[in-house]
Amino acid sequence: MLDVIAPLVVSNTTKIVLISLDGLGGLPRPETGRSELETARLPNLSQLATEAACGLIRHVAPGITPGSGPGHLGLFGYDPLRYQVGRGVLEALGIEFDLRAGDIAARGNFCTVDGTGRITDRRAGRIATDVCVRLTERLRRIRLPGVEVFVEPGKDYRFVLVLRGRARSGGGLSARLSETDPQVLGKPPLAVKALEPRAKATAALVNRFVAEARRLLADAAPANMVLLRGFDQLPKLPRFPEVFGLRSAAIAAYPMYRGLAKLVGMEVLKTGATFDDELATLREHWDTYDFFFVHYKDTDKAGEDGDFDAKVGALERLDRAIPDIRALGPDVLIVSGDHATPSILAGHGWQPVPLLVWSRYCGADAVAAFTERACAGGSLGVIPAQHLMPLVMANALRLIKFGA
Amino acid sequence: MLDVIAPLVVSNTTKIVLISLDGLGGLPRPETGRSELETARLPNLSQLATEAACGLIRHVAPGITPGSGPGHLGLFGYDPLRYQVGRGVLEALGIEFDLRAGDIAARGNFCTVDGTGRITDRRAGRIATDVCVRLTERLRRIRLPGVEVFVEPGKDYRFVLVLRGRARSGGGLSARLSETDPQVLGKPPLAVKALEPRAKATAALVNRFVAEARRLLADAAPANMVLLRGFDQLPKLPRFPEVFGLRSAAIAAYPMYRGLAKLVGMEVLKTGATFDDELATLREHWDTYDFFFVHYKDTDKAGEDGDFDAKVGALERLDRAIPDIRALGPDVLIVSGDHATPSILAGHGWQPVPLLVWSRYCGADAVAAFTERACAGGSLGVIPAQHLMPLVMANALRLIKFGA
Repeated sequence: MLDVIAPLVVSNTTKIVLISLDGLGGLPRPETGRSELETARLPNLSQLATEAACGLIRHVAPGITPGSGPGHLGLFGYDPLRYQVGRGVLEALGIEFDLRAGDIAARGNFCTVDGTGRITDRRAGRIATDVCVRLTERLRRIRLPGVEVFVEPGKDYRFVLVLRGRARSGGGLSARLSETDPQVLGKPPLAVKALEPRAKATAALVNRFVAEARRLLADAAPANMVLLRGFDQLPKLPRFPEVFGLRSAAIAAYPMYRGLAKLVGMEVLKTGATFDDELATLREHWDTYDFFFVHYKDTDKAGEDGDFDAKVGALERLDRAIPDIRALGPDVLIVSGDHATPSILAGHGWQPVPLLVWSRYCGADAVAAFTERACAGGSLGVIPAQHLMPLVMANALRLIKFGA
Repeated sequence: MLDVIAPLVVSNTTKIVLISLDGLGGLPRPETGRSELETARLPNLSQLATEAACGLIRHVAPGITPGSGPGHLGLFGYDPLRYQVGRGVLEALGIEFDLRAGDIAARGNFCTVDGTGRITDRRAGRIATDVCVRLTERLRRIRLPGVEVFVEPGKDYRFVLVLRGRARSGGGLSARLSETDPQVLGKPPLAVKALEPRAKATAALVNRFVAEARRLLADAAPANMVLLRGFDQLPKLPRFPEVFGLRSAAIAAYPMYRGLAKLVGMEVLKTGATFDDELATLREHWDTYDFFFVHYKDTDKAGEDGDFDAKVGALERLDRAIPDIRALGPDVLIVSGDHATPSILAGHGWQPVPLLVWSRYCGADAVAAFTERACAGGSLGVIPAQHLMPLVMANALRLIKFGA
């Protein structure tokens, strides 16, 4: 799709705002038969839906639950099946580690093993983040030949391992490595295996790291061992600002989403911790960019906690911000999300996510409420996420016609 | 899709009529909130929609505005992304030039350049067609080694250049050429460059043509230079009558649509300039063909002019012809279009286009009006244009089942 779009792109002065409500979609609560969106009072979103073209976004395929990476890459116009980003890279982005081309990143867990080396807890009793920080400091003593080693703490029992530089045998590092996490209790961590011949040297380095980590953590129970998975390198992605010809800014309080925006080449604006901070940032930079990606986290957080009422509250708070955003005068305003997080699932869901596209030329449909059920009857139908950006560009009158 | 269909095709005596309302889809007029289709009085189309299965056609992809070429190829069953037709070929079809396999066709503009050769008007003040005719006669004096040169006038400032035969270096002509139109004022026309090594000889021939044209037009201000773009050759398309096993006739007053029908191998029937002439032609040939493509231009013309009321009028005129068409007794009657031309855009649009498929076996749905909004709720959903012909064939009972 990006290849079809690129030659059709033209420039103008229109402004586009994409509001991504993380984990937007939900499911009916059995007691009421109404979803979070159907329960919340959303007068401004209802009004916008009435004026807008509505539909549903399916980010990957029916039944596939998107992670935050594929969810957002889809919204940005990238086919998430073609452009896959490994968990190690996503974790590194999530802590705003300055990952560079060629770096190998892995997601690490501190875990607990027994006297014979068999795993008894894959998350080391979910140790506190400050314990994690102290233990990663121990691991930073590890030296490997020919590469720089970075060990960065994450939340609770999580850390990120990054190897930078050339493996001793030359030819660069390879992330085509098997994982050490056997995903079950009662077995020892697995040795890393090279999944392609040129990954052999990298596999040897990682196994050496794990052996040293075992030694350094021997007395640190419950976190006396590490598990590594999701080895990957930065993917080569077409750059969003160039593909779409848009001066593009990302406004997101959470590191993961800043990282994803940076990955596609957006300018990541400095902002504060709250959505109000994000809106202030939007106002402040209004004149400087053509496209704004604005991320709203609260909906996902409440959904992940399985807190239906909190998610309703998060939606209502977002709704109250809509008039301020409209007052800025965007030419195209999009409200959607990266995946569903139904409260009754207390996790990401596979359900398609409500979408509304408002512009002078969107062609209103019969939808008058921004809910899963209402949007299913909208004129946009159920579209793959990567088709959203072309639609947005068309509504911004930034695409010429295809074929004479 | 064509490969799946071909082995399933069977013959019978059913008759199919596809009415393509050019630029059918529209957008609500802001003052009333109603589109052209929603404003027009369309009793016969409403009745047909009530009896038919309805939906929307998306010709290329969300957000992509189809030109007339991809729009009609989609209706004829061809994936418009796979089968692309260059502008030069479309222009040649549009003037009914007898383009042959291997010919190179380009779209030409007469333009104005200043004393230093820089473009001051890309359309030479939109010179009248009779001036264009006289100037193309001058250009016909140009001789190029080893090829025949055709220069054919179009409307206003437009002409078509066709090269036929072998370039001197042998190996045939190649259309893989860059364009001479810089698309901006204040720059001189660009030299044509070969985009593949075997196009070098053709590029040299075209540059020689341009140099001669400059000399021949030097005193013809405002039209004292030419711009060339959209170099292409006839594409190799599977032939419609063979793929679908249908004796197929095209009835279209406008050359472009006759050309597109000819491109896929339909028989192009002689007809007059009005839709009444087209209907008379339909009646006259009713017994001789299985499939009739009937083209209606007025809707697009009004939309391109940004004339909402004229488009409403064009729709109402078409509506009045529906009973006559039904009286012929088609087994399958399809009403749709090649793209939207919303009056408020005064040009082609990317919006999906209403579709109605009527037959004894279509399975009526809840749709009782032929409008964008109503069809969005139809049983056919939003389908890619190239999926229409299989659906039509099925309704004509001309497809056996797939798999035993």
